[in-house]
Amino acid sequence: MKRSRVTLLAGGVGAARLLRGLAALLRPSDLTVIVNTADDDVFHGLHVSPDVDTILYTLAGLSDPARGWGIDGDTFHATRALERYGRETWFRLGDRDLATHLFRTEALRAGRPLSEVTAEQARALYVEVTVLPMSDDDVRTVIDTARGPLSFQEYLVRERARSTVRSIRYDGIRTARPAPGVLRALEAAHSLIIAPSNPFVSIGPILALAGVRAALRRASAPVVAVSPLIGGRPVKGPADRMMRALGMEPGPIPLAELYRDLLDGLVIDTADRAHLPALETRGLRVSAIDTLMSTQARSTAVARKVLAVADSLRASLAS
Amino acid sequence: MKRSRVTLLAGGVGAARLLRGLAALLRPSDLTVIVNTADDDVFHGLHVSPDVDTILYTLAGLSDPARGWGIDGDTFHATRALERYGRETWFRLGDRDLATHLFRTEALRAGRPLSEVTAEQARALYVEVTVLPMSDDDVRTVIDTARGPLSFQEYLVRERARSTVRSIRYDGIRTARPAPGVLRALEAAHSLIIAPSNPFVSIGPILALAGVRAALRRASAPVVAVSPLIGGRPVKGPADRMMRALGMEPGPIPLAELYRDLLDGLVIDTADRAHLPALETRGLRVSAIDTLMSTQARSTAVARKVLAVADSLRASLAS
Repeated sequence: MKRSRVTLLAGGVGAARLLRGLAALLRPSDLTVIVNTADDDVFHGLHVSPDVDTILYTLAGLSDPARGWGIDGDTFHATRALERYGRETWFRLGDRDLATHLFRTEALRAGRPLSEVTAEQARALYVEVTVLPMSDDDVRTVIDTARGPLSFQEYLVRERARSTVRSIRYDGIRTARPAPGVLRALEAAHSLIIAPSNPFVSIGPILALAGVRAALRRASAPVVAVSPLIGGRPVKGPADRMMRALGMEPGPIPLAELYRDLLDGLVIDTADRAHLPALETRGLRVSAIDTLMSTQARSTAVARKVLAVADSLRASLAS
Repeated sequence: MKRSRVTLLAGGVGAARLLRGLAALLRPSDLTVIVNTADDDVFHGLHVSPDVDTILYTLAGLSDPARGWGIDGDTFHATRALERYGRETWFRLGDRDLATHLFRTEALRAGRPLSEVTAEQARALYVEVTVLPMSDDDVRTVIDTARGPLSFQEYLVRERARSTVRSIRYDGIRTARPAPGVLRALEAAHSLIIAPSNPFVSIGPILALAGVRAALRRASAPVVAVSPLIGGRPVKGPADRMMRALGMEPGPIPLAELYRDLLDGLVIDTADRAHLPALETRGLRVSAIDTLMSTQARSTAVARKVLAVADSLRASLAS
């Protein structure tokens, strides 16, 4: 029997690439995405949720395929005009994208929780997949660097990930609760998928939320991750630099270690297939395929493989 | 001796037209504009000061000459994208214009007074004329209509001034104080000019601020108004409808009555010159010229006449 309820733990661009594949294979009502909000930030007084927007814009068919963030064809007139007022504009907000942040900020200021605002945003964009921000409470990734503590966006966008990372922490994580529906989406899923997102700043905050890691460990559904690394390097972002800074050799084995207590399967790139035996020795179901999701077809192929790994794990768990 | 310090009481578009003429004739350091803020409003969580922006954009050479509001060549991508989220967008904000409202709103939220933010805005736009919002405190024009109370922007922009006006009030006026510099600009001026702006919703709130009307009455400098009416009709806006609704026949005589206790001179349009003798009987120095300021040259011509009327009044007061 095909069991098709899928819950995805997601960061930004890498997750969105896998998600467009999953969305092509599953009914929207069978797909739930739990999205990192620890790299949310405030720019020009507006609450920006980069990962939530990347996920929603992708599902709405609005995302810029080249940049990976923002809205396709967007202009940047407002951002450039802000420079005139001496504002820092290293975090560029498109004009159409600004509407999202204006809408979200006004609703949050009116006291509405982010999960509710995100659901309304999804409806407005005709997105039927369930998209849940990980929490309605503020959690903020802080990167301690040689240059002092930086917010994630300062580290990634302003400093272009050039500062040496000393440690990473999630401010607010102790008191934050998972958003409504998050724990249930983990418990009710037939397949739990960890997107090819940064394990420290995208997946890490979700797993650090009260009850989430335990729910994944306890879940009867198989947990399958897709490695964000190809030949030890991420397609995008600083995952390899962070791994090195934290004393790991970038590759699928340290990744599997980070998820060790909850992982059942792993999809890695063929470039990393030399690690396959060592990963299988750790009791993981591993598949090595081309994981570069540069087109919709490639995204769908990776999604199909991830679901197949989950299905086979479920079948063997049941037998 | 030419005494050249000029203070202008200003609303939006009509005032901006006269101002571009005054700016062509006077040194920036001799010119101060006190701008109505009673039609400020909040859209999408942003503090919008329509008259302040019209004045500053005009002085910066950025204003849209056709529309009279906003920035020349601006686009409206953000506003259109807000419609997707079901937001009311009858008050259209351009993308470049949005930067102004983002800048202002963030600064106000940080606790800075509007006058300080406006001065910084002026510097950023290389405007050397002193532009003072009338008050740092919130004053809001409320139009009581047959359809209930409306904010000024709701009345003017959303309802297109079609609702019957019953009365006009300025919420917050009793506790509001003139912004720093306002009273001094009235006391120190050699000429006090009332722009061809709506007497009820643009000039009215400024005059209703504690101490302003008294300062104008007490001032040794002549007070000269430019009528916003041409043949009983305003170039723009609902001044005539408001006059009628409040029991006046639109024209320069009721206008002069509204300013009776403080006015020394009046510039009216040649279309209204039949009223000239009656106005002079009231002790006013009156000049009838072409007041339609559709080009910079016409604005400069009107400004020159206004200054000449003030100069001649000052000369006769001194003699």
